[in-house]
Amino acid sequence: MSPASRYTYLGPEGTFTEAALRTLPEAATRELMPMVSVPAALDAVRNSEAAAALVPIENSVEGGVTATLDELASGRPLMIYREVLLPIAFALLVRPGTTVESIKTVTGHPVAQPQVRRWMAANLPDALWESAASNADGARLVQEGRYDAAFAGEFAAATYGLEPLVTGIHDADNAATRFVLVGRPARPAAPTGADKTSVVFWLRDDHPGALLEVLQEFASRGVNMMRIESRPTGEGIGRYCFSVDCEGHLQDRRVGDVLMGLKRACEKVRYLGSYPRADEGRATERPGTTDAEFVEAADWLMRCLDGRG
Amino acid sequence: MSPASRYTYLGPEGTFTEAALRTLPEAATRELMPMVSVPAALDAVRNSEAAAALVPIENSVEGGVTATLDELASGRPLMIYREVLLPIAFALLVRPGTTVESIKTVTGHPVAQPQVRRWMAANLPDALWESAASNADGARLVQEGRYDAAFAGEFAAATYGLEPLVTGIHDADNAATRFVLVGRPARPAAPTGADKTSVVFWLRDDHPGALLEVLQEFASRGVNMMRIESRPTGEGIGRYCFSVDCEGHLQDRRVGDVLMGLKRACEKVRYLGSYPRADEGRATERPGTTDAEFVEAADWLMRCLDGRG
Amino acid sequence: MSPASRYTYLGPEGTFTEAALRTLPEAATRELMPMVSVPAALDAVRNSEAAAALVPIENSVEGGVTATLDELASGRPLMIYREVLLPIAFALLVRPGTTVESIKTVTGHPVAQPQVRRWMAANLPDALWESAASNADGARLVQEGRYDAAFAGEFAAATYGLEPLVTGIHDADNAATRFVLVGRPARPAAPTGADKTSVVFWLRDDHPGALLEVLQEFASRGVNMMRIESRPTGEGIGRYCFSVDCEGHLQDRRVGDVLMGLKRACEKVRYLGSYPRADEGRATERPGTTDAEFVEAADWLMRCLDGRG
Amino acid sequence: MSPASRYTYLGPEGTFTEAALRTLPEAATRELMPMVSVPAALDAVRNSEAAAALVPIENSVEGGVTATLDELASGRPLMIYREVLLPIAFALLVRPGTTVESIKTVTGHPVAQPQVRRWMAANLPDALWESAASNADGARLVQEGRYDAAFAGEFAAATYGLEPLVTGIHDADNAATRFVLVGRPARPAAPTGADKTSVVFWLRDDHPGALLEVLQEFASRGVNMMRIESRPTGEGIGRYCFSVDCEGHLQDRRVGDVLMGLKRACEKVRYLGSYPRADEGRATERPGTTDAEFVEAADWLMRCLDGRG
Repeated sequence: MSPASRYTYLGPEGTFTEAALRTLPEAATRELMPMVSVPAALDAVRNSEAAAALVPIENSVEGGVTATLDELASGRPLMIYREVLLPIAFALLVRPGTTVESIKTVTGHPVAQPQVRRWMAANLPDALWESAASNADGARLVQEGRYDAAFAGEFAAATYGLEPLVTGIHDADNAATRFVLVGRPARPAAPTGADKTSVVFWLRDDHPGALLEVLQEFASRGVNMMRIESRPTGEGIGRYCFSVDCEGHLQDRRVGDVLMGLKRACEKVRYLGSYPRADEGRATERPGTTDAEFVEAADWLMRCLDGRG
Repeated sequence: MSPASRYTYLGPEGTFTEAALRTLPEAATRELMPMVSVPAALDAVRNSEAAAALVPIENSVEGGVTATLDELASGRPLMIYREVLLPIAFALLVRPGTTVESIKTVTGHPVAQPQVRRWMAANLPDALWESAASNADGARLVQEGRYDAAFAGEFAAATYGLEPLVTGIHDADNAATRFVLVGRPARPAAPTGADKTSVVFWLRDDHPGALLEVLQEFASRGVNMMRIESRPTGEGIGRYCFSVDCEGHLQDRRVGDVLMGLKRACEKVRYLGSYPRADEGRATERPGTTDAEFVEAADWLMRCLDGRG
Repeated sequence: MSPASRYTYLGPEGTFTEAALRTLPEAATRELMPMVSVPAALDAVRNSEAAAALVPIENSVEGGVTATLDELASGRPLMIYREVLLPIAFALLVRPGTTVESIKTVTGHPVAQPQVRRWMAANLPDALWESAASNADGARLVQEGRYDAAFAGEFAAATYGLEPLVTGIHDADNAATRFVLVGRPARPAAPTGADKTSVVFWLRDDHPGALLEVLQEFASRGVNMMRIESRPTGEGIGRYCFSVDCEGHLQDRRVGDVLMGLKRACEKVRYLGSYPRADEGRATERPGTTDAEFVEAADWLMRCLDGRG
Repeated sequence: MSPASRYTYLGPEGTFTEAALRTLPEAATRELMPMVSVPAALDAVRNSEAAAALVPIENSVEGGVTATLDELASGRPLMIYREVLLPIAFALLVRPGTTVESIKTVTGHPVAQPQVRRWMAANLPDALWESAASNADGARLVQEGRYDAAFAGEFAAATYGLEPLVTGIHDADNAATRFVLVGRPARPAAPTGADKTSVVFWLRDDHPGALLEVLQEFASRGVNMMRIESRPTGEGIGRYCFSVDCEGHLQDRRVGDVLMGLKRACEKVRYLGSYPRADEGRATERPGTTDAEFVEAADWLMRCLDGRG
C-alpha cells in the first residue's frame, strides 16, 4: 500500500493502541504499521511515510502521555483529527491448561502494574511480578514459557496462542485510555455538534496571575476546559507550556474567539485541531455565547462604526 | 440661521454651560440657543431643530448630571461627539460699589452652594443664602436688587451690569465640570490617538458577579474604564443600568472587541460615541492589545480554519 | 423629650419621608423632628441632638440621593440601622369642590414631575406645572389658592385641608423610594438572616481593572452586590469612591471576609452598617461560603500550622 | 543507626538523587539508604523506618515525576521540608583507556536519552543506545564490559572504576532536576523570607471556570504560582487534581488566607508543606498583601463588629 493509506501506531501488535485503532471504521482499509515509539509513529506522519498515527495521549490512572504531549507541542506541526476512548480492562493470559493456583510468576507493561495491584493482592497474593517491555511482549514471554501469566488485552490472546483465564480485571472503575489520531495540518473536519478543540500555549511572562488571565479567555466565552496539563519547556525549572482541551469546534465562534484571545495574550500558541468527542457530550451554551449572538454582536459593531448603531 | 447651524445648550445665557460651549471653535459660527432644561436641549436635536446640544454630564463635586445620563440612555438615540472640561471657579458678583462688609444676602444655583460653603463660612459668615433657578438667574436678581451678591461665572458680570468683587472662588481644588456635545447618530469622528468611548449597558440578570463579568470584558482587553455610574432603570429598586466611559476609540480593535463582548454579555447596550479626550491623555497599550496584534490573531485564526495554522 | 428619644427626618411634615418614618413601630414613641435638609437631619445626630435620622437614599426613578450618599461617605462617621422601602404613589390634592376639568395649574416637588409626566399628559394635558420646594409645600400653596392642585402623598391631604381627587398616580410600576435610619456608630444589630451591609470604598489607584479587583472580593465569596454607585471624591474629574450595598450581615463570615479584603485592597473603606433588608429577601449561600465552612477552613489552617493538617 | 537518623532516597547509589541528597549538610550524619522506587522510599518514612526520604519531583526536561506527585497526593499524609535543585549534566563514563572513536554502544537511564540526544548525534553519530534500569546501573554495565560507555553523573565514575571521558553534557541549558525531602507531617520550619508552599487540591465540580475560581484565590492575594500540574484522580478520564507550588510560607498571612480559600472552594485540599526555596528568590509583595495589612484589616473588622469602626 501507499503511504497515503498507511496508519502507524504505537506498537507492538496486540497492545491496547492497536485495539483502539481498530475501533475506527477506516482502519479496516488501511495498512496498520506498529512503531517502536510515539516519536517514531509521529515522525512517519511528518515525513509523509504514513497518513496518520494513533498514539495514546492520556490515561485515567497514569495521566498524560508525556511523549505524545511533547511531540505535539514541538517539532513540525501535527494535528489531531479523531480521538478514541478505550475502557481499559486486563485479561490474565495463560498457556492453555494453566490454573490460577499454579501461577507463580506474572508479567506485563510497567504501567499495567499499578492498575492491577489490588486485584493481584487479592487473587494472586504470592505471585511474583516482573515487567515486560509491553503488554504484548509479556504475552509473548508467557508463550515462550518464561512466565506463567501476563496481564494484557484479551484481544492479544489469539496472537500468542494463549487463553484468557480471567477477564475484566481493573482496580479502578472507569479506567480508560484516550488515544488520538494525528495527521499533518489540514482543514479540521466539519463540526459535529459534539466536538473538542486542543491547543498548546506558552505564557507571555511569569507575573502573578498570568495563567489566570489566559484561563479567563476561556471562561469569559463560556468555553469549558476539559483537560489542562503543564509541560516543561525545557528552558529550566519553572518554565512551562500548557496543553488544553476545551469543548467545541474552531468553527464555533466562541471557540475561535477564545483562540484569538490566546494568540494575543500568549507568547506562542499552537492549534492542535478540532475533532469529534469520543463521549459525544455536547457543550452547554451559556447565554451570550452562541454563534448567532457572535454574529449579531459583530453586525452591531459594524453598524456603530457606520453611525447606524 | 438654519437648524443645521444651530447649537442648543442648557441655559440660561451666562451660565458655565455657555462658557463651555464658547470654548469650541465652531461655536463662533453657530447660532447658540439656550434651553430651559437638558431634555429640552436634547429634544431639539432629536427633532432636527438643532445640529447639536451642549449639556453638562459630570461635575467633580456634585457627580453625574442625572438628567443628561438618563436622556442619553433612553428615548431616541443620540451620540456624543466632543467633550469640554471646564475648571469651575465662581466669582462673587455685586452691583458696582458694593463692599464685602455690606453683603447680607447671597444667591446662586443650588448646586453652587456646596461648592462655596467653606469660602462663605470664612468670608461671609453672617450672610444669608437663598437659592436661585440658575447662577445666571441669581445674577439677574442681584441686578434687580433682590440680593446683595450672587455666585456665578465671572463672564456673567457684564451681561447683568455687575462687578466681580472676588474671583476664583472654589472650596475644592481641581473642581471642574465636564460637558458633552451631543448630536444625532452618525459615523464617529476619526480617532485622534487620545480618545474616549461612552456606552450604557443593562446587565442580563442579577446573579452574583454579573457586573464583574461585564467589567472583565474591559479588563481582559486592557481597556481602562474612566467613569462608571449606575442609574436606575425605573423598573424598581435594585434595577440599574451602567453608564461607562473607557479609554480609546471604537475603531481601536480592542475597544471594538470590548463592545462586542458587552453586546453578547448584556441584556442591552447603547453605544454613545467615541470622541477626543479633553485631557488629551493617551491610553497605555498592554502587550497583546494593539491593533496589529488583533489583526495578527484574526489572520492566524483564518489560517487555522484553512489548515495552515 | 430628650435628644435620646428624638428622631430627625428630611422635612417638611407631610412628605414621603415622614410617611416612611411612621412605618417604624418605634416612631410612635419618639419625637419626630423635620429638618430642612439631609445634612441638617444628619448633623443633628452627629451632634447628639437626636438619636437617629431618617433620610431618603435611593429612588427607583431618580436614582441615588446624592446628599445622603455624600454625607455618609464623609464627615464624622454615621451608621445605618434600618431601611424602609416605600412604594411611591402620588395623590392629586385639591381644595374641596375642585374638579379635574377646572385644574389649570399644578405644583409639586421637582423630582415628582418626571414621575407623573405621562399621567399629566394623558389626564391634564393643558395644565401648567410649577415646582414647589417640597411636595408638602406644594399642598400648602394649593391651600393658599396659589395653585389648583398639588401632587403629594395622600397622607398630606388632611394636614392642609385638601381632598385627594385622584390617588395611586405613578408613571412607573414598582416605583419606590428607599429610606435609611441613621445613627451614631455602635455595634450593628444582630443578624436576622435577611440582612444587608453597606460600605463605601476608595480605590487605591487607577490602573485598568482596579474596580474589577475589588468587585472580585465580593464575587469570590459569593456575596451579591445589590447596589453600586460611584460618587466623585471632590478631587477632580475621574476620581470616584463607590457606595455599595451587599447581601448579608457583617457577622456573616463571608461578609466579614469581603470587608477585610476591601480594607486591604482599597485606599480607604468606611463601614456603613448591617441591617435588616426591607424586602426580607434571603441571600443564597454558594457552596464554600457558609459560616460553618469558614470556621472549618480556619480550623484546618490552624492544624496545618501545628503540623496536624 | 536508628530509623530516626535514617534517610531513604530513590536509588541505586551513584544516581543524581544521591548526589542531591549529599548537598544537604545534615546528610553527613545520617544513614543514607537507597530504595528501589519512590513509593518504597516514601513508605519507609510512613512506616517510621526512616526519618525522611529524598525523591525527585520535577525535571526541567521530562516534567513532573508522577510517582512522587501521586504518592504525595494520596495515602497517609507526608510533608515536604526541603527542596534541592540540581543542575543536570551528564558525564560520558568509560573504562580507562577507552577513546571516543572506539565507542560503539552507549547506555543510560531512559530519561537520560532525550537529554543527550543532540550531543550524541553530533559526537557519537554511529553509536547504538540501549537503556539501562538507572544511570548508575548503566555505569555498572560498562564496568562489566556490556557497553562501551554510559551517560551518568560524574560522581558515579569512582564507584564503578570508570573514567569521565567527557563531562558537562546536556542538550538543554539550565537543565535541572528538583528533589524534595519528605517527612511525616509536623509543624513546618520557620519562614526564611524566601519560601515556597506546596498543596494539592481537588475541584468541587466541573462547571466552566471552576479551576479559574480557585486560581483566583491565589491571584487575589498576590500570591504567585510557581508550578501547577494536573494529575488524574483515577476516577476516569476528565477527573483531575492539581498539584501547585506557590511563593511564600504558610505563616505568611496571604498564603494562609489563600489556603483557607482553597479549603472552602475545593472538594478537598492537602497541604504539603512550606520550605525554603532552593533558588532563594523572594516574593514581591503587592500592596495590600503584607502581614501588617492583613493584621490591620482583621483589627478593623473587630472594631466594626464592636461599633468602633
